[in-house]
Amino acid sequence: MNVDVKKVLVVSAHPEPRSLNGALTNFAVGHLRAAGHEVRVSDLYAMKWKATVDAGDFPSGEAYEGGSGGVAAGARPRLRVMAASEEATLAGRLTPDVAAEQEKVRWADAVVLQFPLWWFSAPAILKGWIDRVFTAGFAYGPAVPPPYSEGVLAGRRALISVTVGARETSFSDRGIHGQLADVLHPLQHGLFWFTGMAPLAPFAVYGANELPEERFAAARREYGARLDGLFTEDPVPFRSLVGGDYDHDMRLLEGVEEPGVSGLGLHRGVGRGVRRAGRGAAPVS
Amino acid sequence: MNVDVKKVLVVSAHPEPRSLNGALTNFAVGHLRAAGHEVRVSDLYAMKWKATVDAGDFPSGEAYEGGSGGVAAGARPRLRVMAASEEATLAGRLTPDVAAEQEKVRWADAVVLQFPLWWFSAPAILKGWIDRVFTAGFAYGPAVPPPYSEGVLAGRRALISVTVGARETSFSDRGIHGQLADVLHPLQHGLFWFTGMAPLAPFAVYGANELPEERFAAARREYGARLDGLFTEDPVPFRSLVGGDYDHDMRLLEGVEEPGVSGLGLHRGVGRGVRRAGRGAAPVS
Repeated sequence: MNVDVKKVLVVSAHPEPRSLNGALTNFAVGHLRAAGHEVRVSDLYAMKWKATVDAGDFPSGEAYEGGSGGVAAGARPRLRVMAASEEATLAGRLTPDVAAEQEKVRWADAVVLQFPLWWFSAPAILKGWIDRVFTAGFAYGPAVPPPYSEGVLAGRRALISVTVGARETSFSDRGIHGQLADVLHPLQHGLFWFTGMAPLAPFAVYGANELPEERFAAARREYGARLDGLFTEDPVPFRSLVGGDYDHDMRLLEGVEEPGVSGLGLHRGVGRGVRRAGRGAAPVS
Repeated sequence: MNVDVKKVLVVSAHPEPRSLNGALTNFAVGHLRAAGHEVRVSDLYAMKWKATVDAGDFPSGEAYEGGSGGVAAGARPRLRVMAASEEATLAGRLTPDVAAEQEKVRWADAVVLQFPLWWFSAPAILKGWIDRVFTAGFAYGPAVPPPYSEGVLAGRRALISVTVGARETSFSDRGIHGQLADVLHPLQHGLFWFTGMAPLAPFAVYGANELPEERFAAARREYGARLDGLFTEDPVPFRSLVGGDYDHDMRLLEGVEEPGVSGLGLHRGVGRGVRRAGRGAAPVS
């Protein structure tokens, strides 16, 4: 096989293994392995992943209010989440479940998130994977490079595979729920791009509450094609913080965007696949 | 006291009671009670709220694949979350923790969510409160009115009070993280407005990792003023699904928006406070 062998982490978040999400996870693992890639899976429900950040995540307790010795005898120190998170990360004192997931993310050339869209975002168990794994000191903070394109996880690709109960029109560019790219902005731009990972356009299966076999077959074909392009497809052309588009207060400079673009689309530039042709500029959505 | 007495539910999601979020929760409760309102609090960490939707949430198990009797003896039925959620809701068989929170939401004239912005969205424990409490049959689905403005929770108001580590400029209209209103779209439009609740503009404390006393005092003053306006302030003027702005595929009709508006701003119309003045239209962001 002449493919470039890559490492892929698939993170899956559905309580029912025999669900559409379970089937898409299994399909992705099989498809990627058949193409010669190494695949690891974090099946969050099967792992009984702890969703909630709490003091138990930072057992050392040094970076709480006042630091060690700064707290009156007998008083429970005050938890400062970001400081405690960073201290535990840099000291290698994270809990084993979190440390194992960080190792998987570091190992991976690409991360795939598989989940059902619940209330227009990730299920709580997946949000808890993000909240707990992407600690200060690992994914952001003074000890790692600045965010957006130069982030500590740069060099990796990221793909959301999401199932959506509603129809596609309602998530189109004028759809009432908001364009899917905008609804997923907190993950696409806020998690992936912030940490340096290059996100691809999301893969979505709409009308997912009832999916007849022929539509499921079509979805597998489409998903297979997207997985085939995981390392070759052009990522979403989000702008770089350091590329000259933003001022020192992290605001986009006036006039950088294509005419008529506002909202979150401001932060998507013109990608390789849709270069400006002469003077007629092609806005990318 | 001549205020109109209202009922307010404050939902708080921070692991440390002595955090800024804990302080803002306490401030809101005291301020609202001093104004004569009834207040109930759901302190999710103190309640040890279960964040994760799983089969244990739907103990009856009737609405799983095949319904009762449709599954081979000994085989565990396949969980279909939306169907199981709706069946348990309509049959009054939800778990007591979820039923109690639904009763609080129904009781309330306004819901306030207090949380730190983690990865550009709510902490997992709060997402889990949403995932588990806003069941099919309670907040959406064929058994309740259609979503957006006419939703089943119409008549209620909703306010997000969020603490943000970053500076305000980075969440401004041209800020790299995205305008806060857009980043919070899944909650403001996707949870509140979808279920009929009228969301106010979010209240945010920026630069929240280090907050000197004078900035905390200013934040309390500003938050107090927002709470004073909880039942009088103009809500975000999101568009109604049935108001004639959308087609039958739930897409915004062409030309309805103000010139130059794209992205999620399409779904915000012109509010009472910013009516068009003559022919010169004032876009609302």
